[in-house]
Amino acid sequence: MSSFKLREVFKPQKIEPSEEFDTIIIGGGPAGLGAALYSARYQLKTIIVTKTIGGQAVLAPFIENYLGLPNISGSDLVDKFLKHIMNYNIPIVIDEVVNIRKNDVKWIVETKSERNIQGYVVILATGSERRKLNVPGEEEFIGRGVSYCATCDAPFFKNKTVAVIGGGDAALISALYLAAIASKVYIIHRRGEFRAIKTYIDRVFENPKIETIMNTIVLEIIGKDKVEALRIRNIITGEEKLLKIDGVFVEIGSKPPTELFKKIGIETDENGYAIVKPDHSTNLPGIYVAGDSAGGPYKYRLEQIITAVAEGAIAADSAAKYIMSLKRELGKSKV
Amino acid sequence: MSSFKLREVFKPQKIEPSEEFDTIIIGGGPAGLGAALYSARYQLKTIIVTKTIGGQAVLAPFIENYLGLPNISGSDLVDKFLKHIMNYNIPIVIDEVVNIRKNDVKWIVETKSERNIQGYVVILATGSERRKLNVPGEEEFIGRGVSYCATCDAPFFKNKTVAVIGGGDAALISALYLAAIASKVYIIHRRGEFRAIKTYIDRVFENPKIETIMNTIVLEIIGKDKVEALRIRNIITGEEKLLKIDGVFVEIGSKPPTELFKKIGIETDENGYAIVKPDHSTNLPGIYVAGDSAGGPYKYRLEQIITAVAEGAIAADSAAKYIMSLKRELGKSKV
Repeated sequence: MSSFKLREVFKPQKIEPSEEFDTIIIGGGPAGLGAALYSARYQLKTIIVTKTIGGQAVLAPFIENYLGLPNISGSDLVDKFLKHIMNYNIPIVIDEVVNIRKNDVKWIVETKSERNIQGYVVILATGSERRKLNVPGEEEFIGRGVSYCATCDAPFFKNKTVAVIGGGDAALISALYLAAIASKVYIIHRRGEFRAIKTYIDRVFENPKIETIMNTIVLEIIGKDKVEALRIRNIITGEEKLLKIDGVFVEIGSKPPTELFKKIGIETDENGYAIVKPDHSTNLPGIYVAGDSAGGPYKYRLEQIITAVAEGAIAADSAAKYIMSLKRELGKSKV
Repeated sequence: MSSFKLREVFKPQKIEPSEEFDTIIIGGGPAGLGAALYSARYQLKTIIVTKTIGGQAVLAPFIENYLGLPNISGSDLVDKFLKHIMNYNIPIVIDEVVNIRKNDVKWIVETKSERNIQGYVVILATGSERRKLNVPGEEEFIGRGVSYCATCDAPFFKNKTVAVIGGGDAALISALYLAAIASKVYIIHRRGEFRAIKTYIDRVFENPKIETIMNTIVLEIIGKDKVEALRIRNIITGEEKLLKIDGVFVEIGSKPPTELFKKIGIETDENGYAIVKPDHSTNLPGIYVAGDSAGGPYKYRLEQIITAVAEGAIAADSAAKYIMSLKRELGKSKV
């Protein structure tokens, strides 16, 4: 959606194989770019390693809640982020991280393209992928009726009919938010009951705008220029039907990079998110996690661009203090 | 500094004396405006009560670390924030809060102008005032050599001579940050020793760029168009002298509104900041604190615009959930 503009501002830089860094940032979404800005401003030698630029933010058709930049597309916002950090000459390497291991006081980030990038700290800001329905029409209509964020996109469906897919807390909260704005909200859930806290379930059933469709899966998202209907199937009766809607919110969870976290040795919470302290450090000294893949008891999960950027800034700040201490211990202190 | 532009965008709105709100936001800085944006987007009836618009952010001559808006003045950034939230018709009342008390399930915000504003939740985002030296030249040269934020302004003093006033952690951290960028850093402290953690003290004394001037107070900040020198006095010998510098960073602490917090009954930490949980709630149900005046063990103190806005968003989100529960209990649930 945004490839043209991103190409315009994005000139990946080369790194020498032997170069060593202070801060290695994994991830090029809002958290990673926020961390990069702060790290570079602290005069730390910083590098970004990422599979893609912009993370999930790029997918949003309109972003109305990044204070100061109203009514902007996700790709335009990411362009502004990139242009901002380009003032600091931070190399960006497009690559996938396969492992991170300790070598003496440094961490070595190993990539799919067999790079070994060394640094004092690693800030993991890989985000968490939203689980998708994987049905026809889903990819096609992202931003044209298919959304993965009610908080972000609900205002676009004022007095319209929408469906929320899912049956957990996030799905029910999304439905309740949407019911305050849309005229009609269906919740479609593949099981016979919701797996959410009672308060939300009660409120959903009390809400006259919300209709629940249980034991039902989505087979297809249908439309011409934008979403117009869902083809759904009751998995008990086998009955199929078309449900007319203007928008569909997929709320079937997200996938943090739990396997990578476990491989590295980072402690994760019951949902697979990295457990971070308020300063975004982890159980491994020198490893920080910021943004959507950070979790644990001190993290309030909002999954917004503004919170991701702020977490990146916090991680970079605490990482800077760690690097100062470490360099001093090593007798190399230049700061 | 910014009065002209602020006047342009700022049209305070009237409220009827009998009006009741969902969310009352106290404070018009980044945290308050961030909270207002999120609260309004959740379709909650929102009001801002504030002494001033923009908070400390307005004071910054250049802000380079709000991702997406590089090289902007504090007043221009605040203008953008205000314009953004004005899309939501949120009334802004210029007034000072003198007390907040409970009346049944609602909170009543009492102001100096004898307004009584009622709402289900109050988000306190009053910021914390930086303590000032209160010496001649200080006000005059704010933004022209006088700064209260090394993290923000250090890059403007590359290869220059600066002084940091203060002797606590914040002063020493500022000096260490500055030493990586400036050519020379004086630390001027009125006591004979620093009140900071040992690591920072050691690093300050090891750093060849940093010179400490103890038992010394600043009498005056001197310059023509910008800061050129400090007049300082050794309080033991009584000796006075001029110290040539290009910039002075005042790091003698900040003052959260502890008295107001105590009057309301909000628990504060050892420094007088409100103790907040990760969702920015306090010990009082329905009272939230966001931004510089929030503290306690879960809060990482960075005092940046991006973190203040994010905290406002988090407080508004958790407040929205609280309001939904409360209205449901009251049998008034419309969401």
